[in-house]
Parts: sequence; structure tokens; C-alpha cells
Amino acid sequence: MENESPAGPRVVIIGAGFGGLEAAKHLGNKPVSVTVIDRTNHHLFQPLLYQVATAALSPADIAAPIRGVLGKYENIEVVLGEAQAIDLEPRCVRTGERPIPYDYLILATGARHSYFGHDEWEKLAPGLKSLEDAIEIRRRILMAFEFAEKTTDPAARAAAMNFVIIGGGPTGVEMAGAIAEIARETLAKDFRHIDPSTARVILVEGDKRVLSAYPEDLSASALKQLQELGVEVITGTHATNLSENGLEVAGKFIPCRVKIWAAGNVASFVGKTLGVPIDRAGRVIVQDDLTIPGHPEVQVIGDLAHFTDTKGKTLPGISPVAIQEGRHAAQNILRMIKGEKPQRFCYWDKGSMATIGRNRAVADLNFIHLSGLLAWLAWIFVHILYLVGFRNRIAVLFQWAWAYLTFNKGARLITRNFRAEQRPPV
Amino acid sequence: MENESPAGPRVVIIGAGFGGLEAAKHLGNKPVSVTVIDRTNHHLFQPLLYQVATAALSPADIAAPIRGVLGKYENIEVVLGEAQAIDLEPRCVRTGERPIPYDYLILATGARHSYFGHDEWEKLAPGLKSLEDAIEIRRRILMAFEFAEKTTDPAARAAAMNFVIIGGGPTGVEMAGAIAEIARETLAKDFRHIDPSTARVILVEGDKRVLSAYPEDLSASALKQLQELGVEVITGTHATNLSENGLEVAGKFIPCRVKIWAAGNVASFVGKTLGVPIDRAGRVIVQDDLTIPGHPEVQVIGDLAHFTDTKGKTLPGISPVAIQEGRHAAQNILRMIKGEKPQRFCYWDKGSMATIGRNRAVADLNFIHLSGLLAWLAWIFVHILYLVGFRNRIAVLFQWAWAYLTFNKGARLITRNFRAEQRPPV
Repeated sequence: MENESPAGPRVVIIGAGFGGLEAAKHLGNKPVSVTVIDRTNHHLFQPLLYQVATAALSPADIAAPIRGVLGKYENIEVVLGEAQAIDLEPRCVRTGERPIPYDYLILATGARHSYFGHDEWEKLAPGLKSLEDAIEIRRRILMAFEFAEKTTDPAARAAAMNFVIIGGGPTGVEMAGAIAEIARETLAKDFRHIDPSTARVILVEGDKRVLSAYPEDLSASALKQLQELGVEVITGTHATNLSENGLEVAGKFIPCRVKIWAAGNVASFVGKTLGVPIDRAGRVIVQDDLTIPGHPEVQVIGDLAHFTDTKGKTLPGISPVAIQEGRHAAQNILRMIKGEKPQRFCYWDKGSMATIGRNRAVADLNFIHLSGLLAWLAWIFVHILYLVGFRNRIAVLFQWAWAYLTFNKGARLITRNFRAEQRPPV
Repeated sequence: MENESPAGPRVVIIGAGFGGLEAAKHLGNKPVSVTVIDRTNHHLFQPLLYQVATAALSPADIAAPIRGVLGKYENIEVVLGEAQAIDLEPRCVRTGERPIPYDYLILATGARHSYFGHDEWEKLAPGLKSLEDAIEIRRRILMAFEFAEKTTDPAARAAAMNFVIIGGGPTGVEMAGAIAEIARETLAKDFRHIDPSTARVILVEGDKRVLSAYPEDLSASALKQLQELGVEVITGTHATNLSENGLEVAGKFIPCRVKIWAAGNVASFVGKTLGVPIDRAGRVIVQDDLTIPGHPEVQVIGDLAHFTDTKGKTLPGISPVAIQEGRHAAQNILRMIKGEKPQRFCYWDKGSMATIGRNRAVADLNFIHLSGLLAWLAWIFVHILYLVGFRNRIAVLFQWAWAYLTFNKGARLITRNFRAEQRPPV
């Protein structure tokens, strides 16, 4: 069954995150021929990734197969592959396999964590961007308790019960709160030689306050809520000298087995291959209509884009920005096809929110600041609303209700790689 | 918090599969001190593992953390570790770490797949015993369709669309039916260059009929139901000469990318270290009370045990046998503690069932043979009933209902190992 390609200009979208997927949906059943390229087969609901890493949700709960989401649009083709570079002239995406030509391009390859020049820290302190990352962090957290239960060395046991999260943005705050809850509640009765509730959860933030992008009152509330959960928060200093055995914070050594990186992002390398100006974080500096200079056919969106609004503020790397940019980029393409000019992008800021734990969160809805239970309910409502796929919404809601009622987590699995599994000799 | 060990004789259970877990539960809150050793942190509901391998369920749906299941019994300790050998004198389990002494031992380390001397086939045709196996098989099946969609070589495309399952027992039959359903229904609209419904699913069985342990009429019914799903069944011959590109069946080469092994089992190596007679499949030949000769304190159960009933029939390696043996072994220990003698084991055969697909199954309930929808409903009922953990029961039921109504599968994820992930250079 070799389909004829549908007629119309060829639109290539690279990356099926929030921005890319939104753009693709808006071009579905329109007079264009769309190719979506992603290096995984699934769209990932990244705001809930920390819940996979902390065993509350299963990977499949927060991931939707891209083909499944876009299958109903006959003018959209999905390619599992990795973009390596963009050739602006002739217009073409280079992949490891065949090159893919385009008439219009939406580049949405996102960002990954940055170790500020210390790439060797990645093995020691994994970040949280992919399902693989989340499964690995879950394995490390659960294995640390197993190790502490087994070891007879008190120092090694103490180090295994220390969990250090580097970076006090939303991801760091959410991880710290979730690990504290696992230790204090979920695992409370499961061990015989350790008391999981004595685990130390330490959050290190370089800025003077956690959630530094939020208003000061919400940062203060988040700090208070974290401390109520028993999280030790250290601000105004950086973690250094990471090793297998621990790290240094403000010149003091903290022995710890599990270190989690939530400190910084760097944009995807694909942006560099455009040959246009990028900022220090590797983001492509886009014009006010999301295009790059001299190339109205190329738009860059989401975490890969550096967009400055009319007030001179650079938009943050969060999903609402990516979604609105994705929609705008799709609309711009439809305008250009009709001979119109691309329009300038304008971000509608509906606010932002971060969760800290059971009944604990902060929400900045611009017109009002919420903390605690109300913020937490708002957070749940919004995240269920935006979760892709009806099935996932019900599955997640069920697991949350279950966890809320029982203090249990449903996905406490330690799994390893198939090939790496060492079977004993027979 | 170093707990004092509870008083009473030390019972060690190795393996938290169906048999080991059932034994542990029966010894919960009894006057014994129980240690459960397993090399994973979860009990696995193996009868549904094929549903993880075919993207219908998530790993966490069919796995329950052993600590979570047994945490409420204060006399039970769980150790994540691997038994390497049993020393009968002095009574002690050797692990990679400290040795664990016992007064009574229940050995339940199960079986893994056997490649009949061709261990090099394991990489080519993985079997289905662990969650890792299931995730790897899921990855291979989904990647085969992705490859077929991308390649421009017709021969390579055809090979990618051929799926060969080696072994026509329950696992092989279930896998074949599930893959056929994915191809014909779930993925039907997702690709542009291939028609997934043209995939060939080939089931190879060395015996004259599939489900050879079942009555002949049910074998015939299973064959018919498989053929209705479009599965090609080849019986009375073995697969040979496995390679990356395909395999040979009855002297004829079948090009295929995905090969799945469901052909044979070999018992865990731990049984051999007892130094008592074992059968050809490595199973420990146990006495009629499940103990080994000269050692009433050692019982072997489940897939590791070769038990011959009063009619001279060897019990099969299925979960009802393991569960009943586990319960019996626990009761025998409680008897011996009271100075009584261990009693002989007697298996109550309630029948067996295998599912083939949507509305398709066979069930041998001894007093009646069922096929099709009725057998399928019986299968669902029993599997939900026995699924460990209330949460898992609801989660699985929900996903099945969803899949039934929508023809969709909820867990179509391709994930790779964290460390193996090759990130592009920045």
C-alpha cells in the first residue's frame, strides 16, 4: 500500500513535543502534506515525568504514541528518526537515513539538561527529560532503599538514605516533595532494618530562593511547604565535586548515593545547524513572527526558541508557550500558502503552577496567587485537562485517586535493560 | 531502627513467584521468622506478561512490589538478592553477599526458557519470562513496523512484516493472537507506506498440534481461532538455523526480523546445587510431601519441582500448581514445628485455559470444554480474580475495557535503556 502523497506544500515538523504536536494537529486535514519527525515513537507529557521517576505513574500513563494521536489525519505522515541538520538551501532536513525536503519547516526539537560544562556528571546525577531518564531515576531511588536495608556499614547506609536534588525550579521542587512522600508514607512499613522516614531529602538551589521564576510570596510558600514535608532546602549556593559517593555544597561534603539533576537546560543541537544567531543556552533567536531572519519558511518554537515579547521579556521554556507557538506557527503557514504574510506571535500568559506533594502546591494565576490545597486542586484539574488522550486522563485520575486514598504508589518497579541483564550460568 | 528478629524457627523462601509468595502469605503472623529472597523487587503475574509484550498493559499493571504485598506481616523480611547455592549442611543459602541460615527452606526459583543447547539464539529470539523480556519484545514488534514504514527495499520490508513465534504452547498461542490483533486492528490506520494488516504471523510448533497439553478438541478449536485471526500455523516441525535475517522451518527459509521464543523451559540452576536427583529439564525430583530425600526441612515447589502424582502424571509448570504447592509447603512447616510429620501433597486440578484474542479462547474445566466467547469470559474472570493487588485488578480491568471498546492498545511505547541511549553530540 504505497499511498500517493497528498497534494499541497510540504510541511516538515521536527519534534512531537507540546509545540510540534499542536502544530501538526492544526495542519491536520488542511491542504498541506505534513511530515512529523521524532526520535521516539511517543509524545511525552513532560510535566508529569517526575511522577514516573517517583513511582506514582507508569510510563504509558503519560505517553501517547504519535502515530495514534495523528493517525486520523490522512495528510500527516510520521517518521521515527533523528534530524541531524537543516539545509536552508536547498530546503531539506538531513537525517541518518534519507534527506527529507520541505517547503515549510517548524523546528521544535526542544532542550535537554545542561551540566554547565561537566558532562561527566550526567551518569552521576541523571536529569529528567525522557521516559528512560525517569525509569533510571526510579530504579536508583528504590535501589537506594534496598541497599540501605541490606548493608551492615552505617556510613554506607546513611549515604544511601540521603537524596540530593540539584536545582530548585519546578522539577526540582516536585522531585524533592515526591521523594519525601515516598520515604515518609509509601515505604514506611516495608523495611525491617531501616526506617525509610529517616531519609534526608536535600534540595540545592543556586538562586536565593526556590521557584525563582515565581513571585516571591509563592517561593516563600513553596519553601515552607517543602520544609513541612521534611525537605532540607539549601539556597544561594551550587553543588560541586560530584562523585559516586556524594557531592559538595557550600564547601561541605554531603555523602549520598542518589543525586538528581534539575539545574539547567541547553537547547537541542539542531538549532545550531541553521547558522543563525543563538543565545547562550543554544536557543535560536527568532523574530516576532517565530521565523528566522531571511527565511519566512522556517519557524522555531518551544524550548528551542528564544522569543522576546514586546515588553522585552524572554518567554520561559514551559508547555503553554510551546503549545501557543505551535498553533501560531501552523496558522502562519496556512496564511503564507494563501499569499498572506506571517503574523507576529503574542503569548497569552495564563499563569504557572508547581506541585510539592499531597495537598501541597503553589499557583500563580496572575490575578491571584494560590498556595496549599487550593493550588493543588487547580494543578490536578489543569494537568488532567491537558493530558493527551482520553485513556491517559482516566488512567492517571484513577492512579491519583488510589494513591491519595491509600498513600501507596502503583509503579514501584525496578527494571533493568534486557541485554544488560546478567543471567547466572546454568 | 534495627528491629529484633521475631522469635521462632527461621524459614527462608527463595523466589517470590506464585509458589513462594503464597507460602510467605501463609506464614505471615505465624510463630516463625520468614526471609523471602528474590532477585527482583516485584512479584510478576506471568500469565499476563504477553500483554505487556504486545502493548496492551503496562509493566506496573502486572507486577506488585514484594515489600508492598508482604509489608503488613511483621515476621517477614524481604531481601533483594540472588541465591547462588544451597548448603544442606550447615543449613544455609549462599548469596553474592552474606550467607543466610535457615531451619526450614522453601525453594521456588522457577524456570527460564531453554534454547535446547542453542544459547546463541536468545539474542535473536527472546523468550518471555521477565518484565525486561516483555519490554524488549514490545520494542522489537513496534520497531519492525517502524522499519517497514521507512525502508525502500521491498524484501527488507517483507521480512520486517513477518513475525515468527516458535512454540505453540499457551504463551506462543497468546503471543501469535495478540500480534495478529495489533497488526489488523490497533495499527491499521497508523502508517502511510505499509498496510499493517498484511503482516504475516507464523506460529511454529514441533508437536502435531498447538496446545498439545490440552484435549484434542480444544487444540483443534485453538487452531481454527488462530486461523480466523490470520495466523499461519505450522505444526510437526522445528525452527532451525536462526539468524538476524530469518530462520528455517521444515527446510524452508522464512525471512523475518522479529522472532519470539516460546518453545521450552529449563529449571533454575539453584536446584542443581542441592545435589539430589533432577530430571532432564533440571527440575528437582521431590517426594510426595514436596521435600527432598533425607531433608524434611527442604521443600521444592513450582516450576522448579518435578512432582509425580498418584496416577504417575508429572504436574505441569503452571501457576495453580505452584500456588497449591506453596500453600502446602507452608502448612507442612507449621506441622513440623508442632512435631507433626509433613503431609503428602495432592493437586486439585481445576483445569486450564488459554486466550487467543478478542472474544477468542479455549478452556478445559475438566467437566466441560469451552471455546470462543464463553472461554474468553471465563479467562478474563479468572485472571482478574487471581491478579495480585486490588489496584492492579482495577487498572487491568479498565485497560481491557478500553481496549475492547476502542480496538486500541494503551502501552505502545518504544523505550530504550538509559545508559545505552546515544545522545547526539551538542
